[in-house]
Amino acid sequence: MVKEKVVLAYSGGLDTSVILHWLLQKGYEVIAYIADLGQEEDFKAAKEKALKIGATKVYIEDLKEEFVKDFIFPAIRANAIYEGKYLLGTSLARPLIAKRQIEVAMKEKAAAVAHGATGKGNDQVRFELTYYTLAPKIKVISPWKDEEFLRKFQGRTDAIEYAKKHGIPVKQTKNEPWSSDDNIMHISYEAGELEEPDRRPRENMFQMTVSPKEAPDRETEIEIEFKKGTPIKVKNSKNGILKNTPVELFAYLNEMGGKNAIGRVDMVENRFVGIKSRGVYETPAGTILLSSHRDLEGLTMDREVMRIRDSLIPKFAELVYYGFWFSPEMETLRELFDKTQEWVTGKVRVALYKGNVIITGRESPYSLYNQSQSSMDEAGGYDPKDATGFIRINAVRLINNALRKKKSKK
Amino acid sequence: MVKEKVVLAYSGGLDTSVILHWLLQKGYEVIAYIADLGQEEDFKAAKEKALKIGATKVYIEDLKEEFVKDFIFPAIRANAIYEGKYLLGTSLARPLIAKRQIEVAMKEKAAAVAHGATGKGNDQVRFELTYYTLAPKIKVISPWKDEEFLRKFQGRTDAIEYAKKHGIPVKQTKNEPWSSDDNIMHISYEAGELEEPDRRPRENMFQMTVSPKEAPDRETEIEIEFKKGTPIKVKNSKNGILKNTPVELFAYLNEMGGKNAIGRVDMVENRFVGIKSRGVYETPAGTILLSSHRDLEGLTMDREVMRIRDSLIPKFAELVYYGFWFSPEMETLRELFDKTQEWVTGKVRVALYKGNVIITGRESPYSLYNQSQSSMDEAGGYDPKDATGFIRINAVRLINNALRKKKSKK
Amino acid sequence: MVKEKVVLAYSGGLDTSVILHWLLQKGYEVIAYIADLGQEEDFKAAKEKALKIGATKVYIEDLKEEFVKDFIFPAIRANAIYEGKYLLGTSLARPLIAKRQIEVAMKEKAAAVAHGATGKGNDQVRFELTYYTLAPKIKVISPWKDEEFLRKFQGRTDAIEYAKKHGIPVKQTKNEPWSSDDNIMHISYEAGELEEPDRRPRENMFQMTVSPKEAPDRETEIEIEFKKGTPIKVKNSKNGILKNTPVELFAYLNEMGGKNAIGRVDMVENRFVGIKSRGVYETPAGTILLSSHRDLEGLTMDREVMRIRDSLIPKFAELVYYGFWFSPEMETLRELFDKTQEWVTGKVRVALYKGNVIITGRESPYSLYNQSQSSMDEAGGYDPKDATGFIRINAVRLINNALRKKKSKK
Amino acid sequence: MVKEKVVLAYSGGLDTSVILHWLLQKGYEVIAYIADLGQEEDFKAAKEKALKIGATKVYIEDLKEEFVKDFIFPAIRANAIYEGKYLLGTSLARPLIAKRQIEVAMKEKAAAVAHGATGKGNDQVRFELTYYTLAPKIKVISPWKDEEFLRKFQGRTDAIEYAKKHGIPVKQTKNEPWSSDDNIMHISYEAGELEEPDRRPRENMFQMTVSPKEAPDRETEIEIEFKKGTPIKVKNSKNGILKNTPVELFAYLNEMGGKNAIGRVDMVENRFVGIKSRGVYETPAGTILLSSHRDLEGLTMDREVMRIRDSLIPKFAELVYYGFWFSPEMETLRELFDKTQEWVTGKVRVALYKGNVIITGRESPYSLYNQSQSSMDEAGGYDPKDATGFIRINAVRLINNALRKKKSKK
Repeated sequence: MVKEKVVLAYSGGLDTSVILHWLLQKGYEVIAYIADLGQEEDFKAAKEKALKIGATKVYIEDLKEEFVKDFIFPAIRANAIYEGKYLLGTSLARPLIAKRQIEVAMKEKAAAVAHGATGKGNDQVRFELTYYTLAPKIKVISPWKDEEFLRKFQGRTDAIEYAKKHGIPVKQTKNEPWSSDDNIMHISYEAGELEEPDRRPRENMFQMTVSPKEAPDRETEIEIEFKKGTPIKVKNSKNGILKNTPVELFAYLNEMGGKNAIGRVDMVENRFVGIKSRGVYETPAGTILLSSHRDLEGLTMDREVMRIRDSLIPKFAELVYYGFWFSPEMETLRELFDKTQEWVTGKVRVALYKGNVIITGRESPYSLYNQSQSSMDEAGGYDPKDATGFIRINAVRLINNALRKKKSKK
Repeated sequence: MVKEKVVLAYSGGLDTSVILHWLLQKGYEVIAYIADLGQEEDFKAAKEKALKIGATKVYIEDLKEEFVKDFIFPAIRANAIYEGKYLLGTSLARPLIAKRQIEVAMKEKAAAVAHGATGKGNDQVRFELTYYTLAPKIKVISPWKDEEFLRKFQGRTDAIEYAKKHGIPVKQTKNEPWSSDDNIMHISYEAGELEEPDRRPRENMFQMTVSPKEAPDRETEIEIEFKKGTPIKVKNSKNGILKNTPVELFAYLNEMGGKNAIGRVDMVENRFVGIKSRGVYETPAGTILLSSHRDLEGLTMDREVMRIRDSLIPKFAELVYYGFWFSPEMETLRELFDKTQEWVTGKVRVALYKGNVIITGRESPYSLYNQSQSSMDEAGGYDPKDATGFIRINAVRLINNALRKKKSKK
Repeated sequence: MVKEKVVLAYSGGLDTSVILHWLLQKGYEVIAYIADLGQEEDFKAAKEKALKIGATKVYIEDLKEEFVKDFIFPAIRANAIYEGKYLLGTSLARPLIAKRQIEVAMKEKAAAVAHGATGKGNDQVRFELTYYTLAPKIKVISPWKDEEFLRKFQGRTDAIEYAKKHGIPVKQTKNEPWSSDDNIMHISYEAGELEEPDRRPRENMFQMTVSPKEAPDRETEIEIEFKKGTPIKVKNSKNGILKNTPVELFAYLNEMGGKNAIGRVDMVENRFVGIKSRGVYETPAGTILLSSHRDLEGLTMDREVMRIRDSLIPKFAELVYYGFWFSPEMETLRELFDKTQEWVTGKVRVALYKGNVIITGRESPYSLYNQSQSSMDEAGGYDPKDATGFIRINAVRLINNALRKKKSKK
Repeated sequence: MVKEKVVLAYSGGLDTSVILHWLLQKGYEVIAYIADLGQEEDFKAAKEKALKIGATKVYIEDLKEEFVKDFIFPAIRANAIYEGKYLLGTSLARPLIAKRQIEVAMKEKAAAVAHGATGKGNDQVRFELTYYTLAPKIKVISPWKDEEFLRKFQGRTDAIEYAKKHGIPVKQTKNEPWSSDDNIMHISYEAGELEEPDRRPRENMFQMTVSPKEAPDRETEIEIEFKKGTPIKVKNSKNGILKNTPVELFAYLNEMGGKNAIGRVDMVENRFVGIKSRGVYETPAGTILLSSHRDLEGLTMDREVMRIRDSLIPKFAELVYYGFWFSPEMETLRELFDKTQEWVTGKVRVALYKGNVIITGRESPYSLYNQSQSSMDEAGGYDPKDATGFIRINAVRLINNALRKKKSKK
């Protein structure tokens, strides 16, 4: 009898290794899919491990460019920020992994896909909504929501014992009192001692950024060039280092941002499943880009276009966070957001210093700023007397309301 | 013949002094109104100057408490921020001054009110909309939109000469290449060399905050207590200093924030009259409060309440910025915003360090965070298997869309 | 052993009768709860039937007044309309029934509640979200999502056979090719032949309204008085009949509306579970009230208040439709919506005629309409010359955009 | 000396004839521009009149197709409706006239444009914002905001006398106690006796529609075909008459709608200048199209796309009403609105009967409706048991809120 094939999103870690083995036990043929999104990982070792456990095939794909270009940059263009703080580093990664998993499943004629995300979190939703959207009839295996699996693996100890028993190599992990997830955009930390919202994270937890205290006592000056809202060039104003491909410029901003302690966030956030959770994030490049992109919009974006767009940022961020990247409403919003970026072209200069992204200048060939019009010392084609009528007409409605209020009190 | 009385918003500076004299020349009796909103000013000297020029009466009123309690704190409760950056320090002050001016005009049976705001800016609108709303029939005198006045005073030189000619004392000002406006909430800078959006402000411009470089190399730890979104207590965790009245706690946060380089913003913004302008701001206490307030909401505010509220922040900030503080739509929004603050009670701990407001902990008697529910290691009354159905039902619509797309391509 | 008690939302129909019996078989003690929301029903017969089947107790409660006052009227005040068409007659009823069920369960110390809504529809959500909100630890029994029950009852035939087998009286129903649900607000029709969206409903399906063709060839003139957005009085302008209690005025509008063919809607709508479904509705009184309420707002509501409110109507309606009546976000929205109704007091005159609600006049002590200001023939305290400045300032931004566009094309 | 040329939006009526003459007196060369938007007018006579008064040139242009295709249909696609009632017939026409006026002014090298809209209304804004946007440096002449003109012409009598004195032919108008404006989309009525909001319009005022009482006692059945939200074909189901060009199909729907009393609206609305005014409208074709378009969206539009779109309809309508048709924010919204129409293709069948637009059926090749999924009798690829998890996860947040509320009360 031919076994059903399943494409498993594999990380090389304990959980997905145990899942790989469990799937084999359940009678599946397993293809391991490893996405390189820039995370710290020995991909070769992971591959060998998967094969050793019993995977028929292992895919390792470098998705960094697609991730930066087609997921991170659209989020920057949208000023996407979840609940006022989170830059969505994990949320943006999941749909890409899931999409590739499905593509591999198609190619391999696999009947199922599987992932190792837990049943309380957001990632399960992001994976599975993408699976269902891109392959409506695919079978989705989610062990952490599977009764039998849950009974078997009630804690980390069970997984370790299972691994030992079945000869699955268990990495000597640092056994940190938190869990983390990293990619080129960010590292997120949660769980363990972070579950106390009143407890400050230890300094040694952070990996991408130094503490403001450890950052150099000198500004790093960077010039970022945007074209229609997309970063296309990053230049170190001091040493002239220049990066102009998505991954390179993003990585460079990570390096500069990390060195200067940029992009830490600590928050209590709302998961899609209705649970509040505490998360800590490091997003150096994203933070610099968001800040400089917003600034350039100040110079180049029409006010009313900005109003409409600003009222939709929370929706956009929510959709990303909830896992609706591939959805009709997201396509609709992206259409609008991209339209708003038509003129967001130009350069922003920033100084990075001990956690601060200091805007030091901006310019654009499409600037709507008009110095003589803005100036208090020049006319600039503006007649102040017009403002009299402007204000008086704006007051018509307010006066009518005021008169009613007064009248009603008599 | 009895002269018409006018109540002039008087600052003691050159412009409003010249206006005071000009109004007298035009045959008005002038009452000078000076609001103390915490700005750097020798109020006694200003009073004497006004009387010397010819004002019949001078009102000096300390409005700091009303300003903090009834204008700044509602804005904090609303997370009000204009175009993603500006905390509205000037916008919040104008309606209060205008309101008191009207109250004085009523008491003094004055026929008119006057202000010295220019015809290109936002302040004229904020003053005048408030005037018209609170006294629909009042006569509004706005010299900088008056043809005759504008002909006479075409630049600063004209004003200085006029002052000299009429014996109006001209302060030796530092003659800085920018203009500024300050109150307890902030200092704003614009004009002069700031009119070049690509030029970084000189370090010596800043008055409320030191540069991150000059800030101490040690964190200042502060605990802020909120009740229904309003800050009610501020405590220095190190030395135990405690402030629990609006003005005192706000001033203390200004001091601590200023010392630690908190709250500088540099931006190109959109004025209500359709002009883009470049503004630089220092808002130490406001920045700390906004950041810690948002954080406490993470712990205590329902997700969907937050969604509705977040979509309205841009509107709220716009109304404040445009001068619609006293308007029916603002009353309506305040009703909603205050309702959202019902449970935003608790404490937030922050570390201030070289420009950074680092959240180090938060707690609330009304926390919606549930450690065991959030935890990856405990059930917490949550059944992961429910998530299967949750995701599958969320996918129903996406699948229908996906099938249509596929079908339409055939 | 003491049996667990369950409070079942009981209608007297086949489904809930079978469920009642099934619950008894499962070992529960069943209390039947019958809500009188104005539906066509022989409540006494229903009670006897429940007792005969084996219910320990039967509650029949007249909830009409609470329904009209606390559910329908708030929806009218909010101009609630789902997807541009549906007035939410069923959506509003479910949370009330569920709330009372919970209150009875508390009183009776029941461990569980049950309902007969299907697993594909919206009602299950409305019932259960209310149950969980008002009694977080209650056990919810939903047979139409129960594997065992679903296996047993795969179609109507199974239910009839079960009934016969167990001596449950089966009413001779008309066996119509659709199903319907009625209460004082409306009748909804779905399923059966209505599942073809291209098929027009038969005329004899409609119960509350005559066809426009059958309606009298004479207008019925009605005057409706609102106080803060709530209808308080309805008067027939011809015969002087007057109704001024919630239920009476609503019932009278139903009668007049029904007679004049008012309030039929036919649509394809989106269920919360992601399925599209076709629904047909009759809502005579609701339609008249919505139309006249909107009209009175035209006269009395400030424009900008209306703008904010209008942008939130779809959200309000969605929350009602999805079953979030008792939710923090709904409380928040209600606060805002009620505030907007502050001045919506006055009278609207309507003529009902063959499906048309024709507004024939409106008046209010708080009218913001000012005839002389509006008039083209009078000044009315408005200076047309102010409009010059108003328009020119509004054009500043547009001109800047236009000049940029032109410049960029060179 | 060469005279400055002005292009006047000319209607042939008294007002613009007087303005034409006044402009000549002021020393301008006047080019009369007459737009044929489908209004009732003897264009030849108007032309002769303009020439007789002294216009150098007269343009008469048939803009009906552009009007229907590029202005009315986009509004239908957007479901644009102002303040819940008004279909924007006049608002949509003004920017088109103004645009063509500017194009003629360019061609004729005219320095100025002029219009006869009053200083209290919306039309002045719509004309002038378009002028400024399309020709930022054009001189705008608006006699009804000109001090000298206003002094001269204080009422209709002054205009008549001026006309007589200067040999301007004065049409024997019916001298109706209201004023009206018509084009192919609608007739609007205001002023005169309509200024009493409590007075019902006389039946003989209406021109495009018969009274429901006069309408035939038989339904007119029409089938309307849409492609991406745009009506492309209209068929009379009875006699097979078929129209498939924009103007023809629109005119045919006007005819059928008018005959069946469709599309009357009576309301108090908010003008952009802050005044409330009473307007009465007849929009037969627009009403039919809006209703059938909305219906087709029910069948074909994704729910969440609809949510986003619905929240923006009030904004879209406001922008049209205020005169911002040619604005960056409108371009942005149109981008989003057009995207939402991607699948709104199909046929809607309606029965027109005495004021009612009764939807009798709809179909689409891109329907998202799935009969077996929707049906209560079939599974349709939907597992009701999933709904359990869906509801329970939706309840997580509500339960947390409920527990907090309960706890806080202790």
